[in-house]
Amino acid sequence: MTEFLEELRAALGAEHVLTGDDALRYGRDWMGHYIGHPLAVARPASTAGVAACVTLAARAGVAVVPIGGNTGLVGGTMTEGGLLVSLERMNRIREIRLDARLVIAEAGVVLQKIHEAAEDLGLYFPLWFGARGSAMLGGALSTNAGGSNVLRYGSTRGLCLGLEVVLADGRVLNLMSELHKDNSGYDLKQLFIGAEGTLGIITAAVMKLVPAPRAHATAVVAARALPQALALLNRMQEATGGRVEAFELMPADYARRLAEVRPDLGQPFAEIPGVTILIEAATTSEDEARPGPDGAVPLVTKLEEVLGAMLEEGLIGDAVIATSEASRRAIWARREAAAEICQGLAPYVDTDICLPVDRVDRFLTAAAARLDALDPGARTITVGHLGDGNLHFSVYPTREGLEQAVMETVEDLVAELGGSFSAEHGIGLSKLPSMRRRKDPVALDVMRAVKAALDPGGRMNPGKVIP
Amino acid sequence: MTEFLEELRAALGAEHVLTGDDALRYGRDWMGHYIGHPLAVARPASTAGVAACVTLAARAGVAVVPIGGNTGLVGGTMTEGGLLVSLERMNRIREIRLDARLVIAEAGVVLQKIHEAAEDLGLYFPLWFGARGSAMLGGALSTNAGGSNVLRYGSTRGLCLGLEVVLADGRVLNLMSELHKDNSGYDLKQLFIGAEGTLGIITAAVMKLVPAPRAHATAVVAARALPQALALLNRMQEATGGRVEAFELMPADYARRLAEVRPDLGQPFAEIPGVTILIEAATTSEDEARPGPDGAVPLVTKLEEVLGAMLEEGLIGDAVIATSEASRRAIWARREAAAEICQGLAPYVDTDICLPVDRVDRFLTAAAARLDALDPGARTITVGHLGDGNLHFSVYPTREGLEQAVMETVEDLVAELGGSFSAEHGIGLSKLPSMRRRKDPVALDVMRAVKAALDPGGRMNPGKVIP
Repeated sequence: MTEFLEELRAALGAEHVLTGDDALRYGRDWMGHYIGHPLAVARPASTAGVAACVTLAARAGVAVVPIGGNTGLVGGTMTEGGLLVSLERMNRIREIRLDARLVIAEAGVVLQKIHEAAEDLGLYFPLWFGARGSAMLGGALSTNAGGSNVLRYGSTRGLCLGLEVVLADGRVLNLMSELHKDNSGYDLKQLFIGAEGTLGIITAAVMKLVPAPRAHATAVVAARALPQALALLNRMQEATGGRVEAFELMPADYARRLAEVRPDLGQPFAEIPGVTILIEAATTSEDEARPGPDGAVPLVTKLEEVLGAMLEEGLIGDAVIATSEASRRAIWARREAAAEICQGLAPYVDTDICLPVDRVDRFLTAAAARLDALDPGARTITVGHLGDGNLHFSVYPTREGLEQAVMETVEDLVAELGGSFSAEHGIGLSKLPSMRRRKDPVALDVMRAVKAALDPGGRMNPGKVIP
Repeated sequence: MTEFLEELRAALGAEHVLTGDDALRYGRDWMGHYIGHPLAVARPASTAGVAACVTLAARAGVAVVPIGGNTGLVGGTMTEGGLLVSLERMNRIREIRLDARLVIAEAGVVLQKIHEAAEDLGLYFPLWFGARGSAMLGGALSTNAGGSNVLRYGSTRGLCLGLEVVLADGRVLNLMSELHKDNSGYDLKQLFIGAEGTLGIITAAVMKLVPAPRAHATAVVAARALPQALALLNRMQEATGGRVEAFELMPADYARRLAEVRPDLGQPFAEIPGVTILIEAATTSEDEARPGPDGAVPLVTKLEEVLGAMLEEGLIGDAVIATSEASRRAIWARREAAAEICQGLAPYVDTDICLPVDRVDRFLTAAAARLDALDPGARTITVGHLGDGNLHFSVYPTREGLEQAVMETVEDLVAELGGSFSAEHGIGLSKLPSMRRRKDPVALDVMRAVKAALDPGGRMNPGKVIP
């Protein structure tokens, strides 16, 4: 191993090969749930540098595990004795083009940097979630990250036009197409998106940008129950012809936890409602964004009309519409505190499930009943992208040892309702047992065949994704 | 082989195993460019039947080639001595759901049947192209077909939520997810979409539907030149906040050929302009669709305003707006005659290229110059989805023997401009030389590795896609 580390230092510069305590900082995930001991951390600054890491590691028989902003939630970068390849120095936006509406960026670019660069050109990069100030593009691609705007713009996969990947044998696969249509053989980039580094290391990508909205209409709404919330989504989509960008669910268990941990963020309603919804629509049309003589923005007026009618019909209890960018931000801050406020209670079982949208209500009702039978007094905190049917349903059992039973109870119910145990966080280590239990065995076999074909030595992030 | 055919007959029923002249009808593509001689044609009615075909063929060492509506343009179903598996009897819409906005259909369902079933529910299936009355879902998925609405709704890949596939070993891979987010391991369905049956046979799919537009605004426009045409696209997108669904290019060479072959379809302008554009916007918003007191539909008024301003500025020469569904259909009929009118001249070189949208103009100018140098007098017919940068640029050399040189000239130019030699028709046989010449060798190697992993016997549509 000494020789391997010497070769790495020669290739990257000694200061970019970290060992000991310096390496341990990278070995631990941000939540402290996964504490690994990497052999070393390499910090290449170029695609050629990443290729050198992979080639040298292959020769030494060392596993290679890529790491970006370390904001993952599933232990995807944990390693015992492998080489962590940090993409943090590959942080250049290579090109950003207004007319073509695209950005070409390296894997280590923090998402927020792309948001800012796009904004400077009057464009918008739709990949948006709480950790955007630390999460890096390569990690978002490798987990096919979701976020708050998937309803309107699709997930990371749908935003990616082209990809550059270092393969297990150190060769560079150049798929950096800028085209919206390119059917020249198998669409190989799809294999690496969501593969969590098990098939190769993503080093750069071509990502779509969209025109920046000229106006937003944002509200927080106390709905009677889930069906009435979904009626709000449908009515607003119909009224605006599909301008809803985010439709987020915060049930009472979430609001109560938020009040405990972050009282500074406030609560929109005097009493915590059973179902709180964050709805946001946006438009790029000047007609819909230009304030009228009375100062009212037409898109906001539409939201007011929809909410007003639903209030009169008794379908919603109350609603607060953002009147400024500051009040919009305050509404979002309560949603984006999710990752933070779900921490700190133990024992705990976190999930990232997806359900058909019209079955979310049945899930929540049935889950409460089954958990009550299993562990009366267990606490839950639920938050989710209701428009996509994606819930982060966290359970806090009353005692240690129930975690496995809770997870299986939730998974059983999800499977009964035609859902998935994994929506937008990835598999990593934490969802491996679910993959083993729940995934179609034929699909697992095909995944193993693809893995063996692309990484015959089994050195790319071994032990992740595929059980 | 007699034994194999007997086994097939026993599995499917004798009347569903065709040989001799009955089989030859399937062996010939609709243009008559590829005339193959299949050993037999099997017509299974179920996924289990398809699996039986694949299993029996594997045992007999016979190649398996799926065929749908036989509307392909690249020879993707041509076989000498293989078993053609026709999906035509797998023509059931298994389920269509208004609330979930999805359809679950078998591979042999003709696209138009899905269009009609969706329409009955007030929904729309966006996969729309000239051959929709014959093309089948399985073929559209296997070629990742494009069409006229990709600009707004994406290509077939983007509309697919779930897939059922019979693998090379006869096992059924069930990926029939109905979810909009599902990150449970590698997204295997992506491998089979666009693989033209070389990795397995698609037998069914879950496809997204969208709300049916309440109103269209459709016009045919004589633009000064390409840059002015693109200005029209940008202005209409800005005015409507992205409601443009189709933006089709018909240069003078196309209009002239249309006048020759289909004079019955008429011409919108007294003189054929250099650049004719078909633009169509659509809305699901009632406000934009409801006629005002003067009978004017607001979306149509917006199109009139955009066109009026551009007329005044001299950017466009003339425009005709559809005033009824009949006049809208007449405008579309001139576009949808493309496949028909490009036939009948020989020798000919057809292409299906994609370019960055802002480089289409440079391509057309440079292509004309280079072709003039190579073969003065060569004729061209160009038609395309300008909003996607996708051109069908057909060249008719003045004599036999120039086809290869013409193709390479076009490909050289496409490559120089950062484009692709294949956009939406697939590779099949006709684009194999282009794959060999133009595709990144590392990408070809990865494709071969994937192919070998999923079809180790090399019996699934052999000799297609990968050179």
